[in-house]
Amino acid sequence: MAAPIDRSQMGLLEVEEIRSFVCRCVETAGGAPSHASCLADVLLAADTRGHYSHGLNRLEMYVWELQAGQCDGKATPTIIKESPGTGHVDGQNAIGTVVGTFCMDLAIKKAKNVGIGWVSCKGSNHFGIAGYYSLMAIKEGLLGMATTNTSPIAVPTRAKEVALGTNAFTFGAPADDNDSFVLDMATTTAALGKVEMQRRKEEPMPNCWGVDSDGKETKDPNKVMDGGGLLYLGGTEETGGYKGYGLGMMVEIMGGILGGGPYGTHIRKWQKDDRVADLGQTFVAINPEMFAPDFTGRMRQFMQEMRAMEPADPDKPVLVAGDPERCYEKRVTEEGGVWYHRSLITAMDKLAVELKVEPMKLKNA
Amino acid sequence: MAAPIDRSQMGLLEVEEIRSFVCRCVETAGGAPSHASCLADVLLAADTRGHYSHGLNRLEMYVWELQAGQCDGKATPTIIKESPGTGHVDGQNAIGTVVGTFCMDLAIKKAKNVGIGWVSCKGSNHFGIAGYYSLMAIKEGLLGMATTNTSPIAVPTRAKEVALGTNAFTFGAPADDNDSFVLDMATTTAALGKVEMQRRKEEPMPNCWGVDSDGKETKDPNKVMDGGGLLYLGGTEETGGYKGYGLGMMVEIMGGILGGGPYGTHIRKWQKDDRVADLGQTFVAINPEMFAPDFTGRMRQFMQEMRAMEPADPDKPVLVAGDPERCYEKRVTEEGGVWYHRSLITAMDKLAVELKVEPMKLKNA
Repeated sequence: MAAPIDRSQMGLLEVEEIRSFVCRCVETAGGAPSHASCLADVLLAADTRGHYSHGLNRLEMYVWELQAGQCDGKATPTIIKESPGTGHVDGQNAIGTVVGTFCMDLAIKKAKNVGIGWVSCKGSNHFGIAGYYSLMAIKEGLLGMATTNTSPIAVPTRAKEVALGTNAFTFGAPADDNDSFVLDMATTTAALGKVEMQRRKEEPMPNCWGVDSDGKETKDPNKVMDGGGLLYLGGTEETGGYKGYGLGMMVEIMGGILGGGPYGTHIRKWQKDDRVADLGQTFVAINPEMFAPDFTGRMRQFMQEMRAMEPADPDKPVLVAGDPERCYEKRVTEEGGVWYHRSLITAMDKLAVELKVEPMKLKNA
Repeated sequence: MAAPIDRSQMGLLEVEEIRSFVCRCVETAGGAPSHASCLADVLLAADTRGHYSHGLNRLEMYVWELQAGQCDGKATPTIIKESPGTGHVDGQNAIGTVVGTFCMDLAIKKAKNVGIGWVSCKGSNHFGIAGYYSLMAIKEGLLGMATTNTSPIAVPTRAKEVALGTNAFTFGAPADDNDSFVLDMATTTAALGKVEMQRRKEEPMPNCWGVDSDGKETKDPNKVMDGGGLLYLGGTEETGGYKGYGLGMMVEIMGGILGGGPYGTHIRKWQKDDRVADLGQTFVAINPEMFAPDFTGRMRQFMQEMRAMEPADPDKPVLVAGDPERCYEKRVTEEGGVWYHRSLITAMDKLAVELKVEPMKLKNA
């Protein structure tokens, strides 16, 4: 269920307008046309699914990294080693979405051949919303899984300092009637952006979100931002946070350790540019036809049964992973575009001036 | 770090004494000798790793299920469908550890052939500690993953009633110097046994553990036990519980949906005997030699770096998944056996009388 939007400070942009703008910007910054188009697809998937933090909001970062040579807009990922069911890829510092798409395509091909494909890489960059890669598998009738390590920003259970990233994990599965299950989560309780938002609003955070510089749980967003860090899913040790920390380490094992790039504290700090990101990621595709018959029929029934449960609060129906995003996508289709806050549109106009490219035209200007 | 044990109410049993007792009981209840031995291995792995809830403590349940014909102690699992990287197995209602070992062996064989093996089954039973199956892969130099669905006992985010199980998940990886990472977790914050323990002690539970019959979070263990249910990792929606709920559904997708057995509310209730368990489980093995060189060396360094972090509380060192269990195993070796509470030993003596088998002899009798 998407929340109602206050449109007084917002502007509507058509999807194709956004896509062509991203392509203009990325190509001008040095990206190959096909790579620019790939990045546009993933950023649009984020915005049309309601994950604004990972859409146009990140475009300046991608452009800046291309211009600074932190990321190679023309590089093509290469396969280092291959077996019928696995692939080890060097992303060659290409745009993260290009590496991610390359690896998931390879995993899909293998899943169609031998039932499953598992591809891990080094040399990647931010790959956008993790869920995009599950959706790639789902479109082919397969189950999908993907992970990425990220800059250290979370504090392991019992520790005082950050040592691992928000280390995202996604798992998806197709279902009948165009339905699907798409779990797309940071292994931390909350993303840093949510903590920043509480600080701006000068409101305390819920339990389980973060710790101060002594490693003690705090509800004060300032303390998390100033020397503290995020807590893994489950919060403190008492409330199960050691499990979330274990999942965060699992994603790092599937990232820097399997892929062969840096890991943990060896990854560059968030928004620091002292070296390339060299992220490690894993992509898995599984062919349900190799298992019990009518996978998608049972998936659909399972999800419908969960949604039909009586909710504790009548205004908050029981959902399944992927439902809020599907609801958002439907609204974008109905409204003919994506609503953005004016501040983001202003930032994009500024970017257009800097790059000397055509700005976006508002649909409701 | 294992907690110090009060030995006044305890008895020490040698590992081989425990093993032969389990074999005697299971064979008398109708289990084939090799199946009895397999179950003994897994129960011993639980007790020697400090997970007493899943060891001898469960023996009466396994014996009862064999005697009642709820589980077939002589059945052999069969492969329904196979591809180079996948297997679909019917457990044929054999002892869960027999099914689990069969499936993980198959996954390991495939991982050695094509880099990865993914095996999902139906027709299984309780397979003991999930971590046992990760350890099977680790012993072969591989990464391992396993999941099992279980009886509905947890409440989905926003719902009022139980609809899914504690749905266990394990992921493990080998490392140099006989080190290893072994994450072995229920996807709920806590197991039901922990709630029962708080009720016995008449103490409140921490946040994030459970809800009452209205679906509201509660710290009262009685309310969880009487019409309420467990919460998934992360607790309520506000503290990230929807992610744990998503992971719980993922395990069910890898269980009843891929395997083709019952799922969610269709699985028999906990400790009810109206029908066979027919659990769905998945086992994955991944060959690290197909990826970046020196996987085990980097694993070891990564884990050592995490352990070396300054702890928030000097008495609580930073750990890595599997450390408490390894510490427990070391103590069992040093002490020449496993310490059990007298109440459990009494229960085992009673079981010996019932089955007319030789009881265990205490090492410190």
